[in-house]
Amino acid sequence: MYLYDIGNTNTKVYHDGKIEIDNSGNFPKEKFYYICVNSRYHDRLKEMDNAINLADKISLDTNYKGLGIDRQIVCKALPNAVIIDAGSAITVDIMIRGRHQGGFIMIGLQSFRQSFAKISDALNYELDNHIDLDTLPQNTSDALNFATFQAIVASIEKVRGDLPLVFCGGDGEKLLRFFKDASYHDSLVFEGMKKVIEESGC
Amino acid sequence: MYLYDIGNTNTKVYHDGKIEIDNSGNFPKEKFYYICVNSRYHDRLKEMDNAINLADKISLDTNYKGLGIDRQIVCKALPNAVIIDAGSAITVDIMIRGRHQGGFIMIGLQSFRQSFAKISDALNYELDNHIDLDTLPQNTSDALNFATFQAIVASIEKVRGDLPLVFCGGDGEKLLRFFKDASYHDSLVFEGMKKVIEESGC
Repeated sequence: MYLYDIGNTNTKVYHDGKIEIDNSGNFPKEKFYYICVNSRYHDRLKEMDNAINLADKISLDTNYKGLGIDRQIVCKALPNAVIIDAGSAITVDIMIRGRHQGGFIMIGLQSFRQSFAKISDALNYELDNHIDLDTLPQNTSDALNFATFQAIVASIEKVRGDLPLVFCGGDGEKLLRFFKDASYHDSLVFEGMKKVIEESGC
Repeated sequence: MYLYDIGNTNTKVYHDGKIEIDNSGNFPKEKFYYICVNSRYHDRLKEMDNAINLADKISLDTNYKGLGIDRQIVCKALPNAVIIDAGSAITVDIMIRGRHQGGFIMIGLQSFRQSFAKISDALNYELDNHIDLDTLPQNTSDALNFATFQAIVASIEKVRGDLPLVFCGGDGEKLLRFFKDASYHDSLVFEGMKKVIEESGC
């Protein structure tokens, strides 16, 4: 089975239990399943008879209007969890007994860094996830790292209740150390895609 | 008494109990006190015999290295409080019994908005501080406002303990409604300047 997760930067491919990045723009001749948030590929994929868009097959129980297909898919993978996809943006979605309860979108770690640098040259810093959030900062670099990670951590803690946290996305592992009962799944999107294929029988 | 608070964008002047913005670049001929974070004015002010730089007179009890003069001054105004100056950046400083305990620097409301817009056209939104932080968002606009205000509110709540919150700065009033025991002081910097003049006898 071929599964394609086509993002704006990278295309990730699952095949025979392996995950690879393939930005060649080539697709298999046999049947394959995909989700796509990259508008450059939409028309081409629609014309391919062997390409199955899981956005047309997914059914997620939610009241949220306009939930991106990438968020819907990872929610399908986990019926009871707070799911955090940490990339250029950080999406947070809450699933309880298979129902999506709502969610929110934070800016990503790099966006925090870039925003500070844009406000003032004096606020240029290197991201460092070893910052201690239980000790008030005593210099500028700590003050910026504290604010960055605390904004993300406190926001997630506020909504998690008793749910486990599951991280995915390029920056997900950098956030793990701040939480109890948290894990990182690099194949969450493909787990969600398999679930949709199974449920829809497509 | 003339008090000048010279920022990068505006110069605020306190005189005879009134506060005005005066960006003319003119200063009084009589003695006046100032703090200045705008490097364009530093040399000129140094050469003026009637201009007293309170950065040379202030003494704040702290271990923080490199605390900006604007943050030091507002801390002098309040011996027991969390002081939040909300502008292009949002500084948070904790004062207990006249001692500065540390602090941190968040990005400002407009920086959040600009960062989202830069990540994706789909994440363009209007800031709206009427967002309810006790209800999980069910659409993109709410998801972005929720994330913006919750990041700020949860970060402040996490460090405040039992201290009152005192806001200043251009966006300070927009944050008030999210907190108990919180107030807005538009003349906090001048209160701090008066305190430093009194203490140093300059």
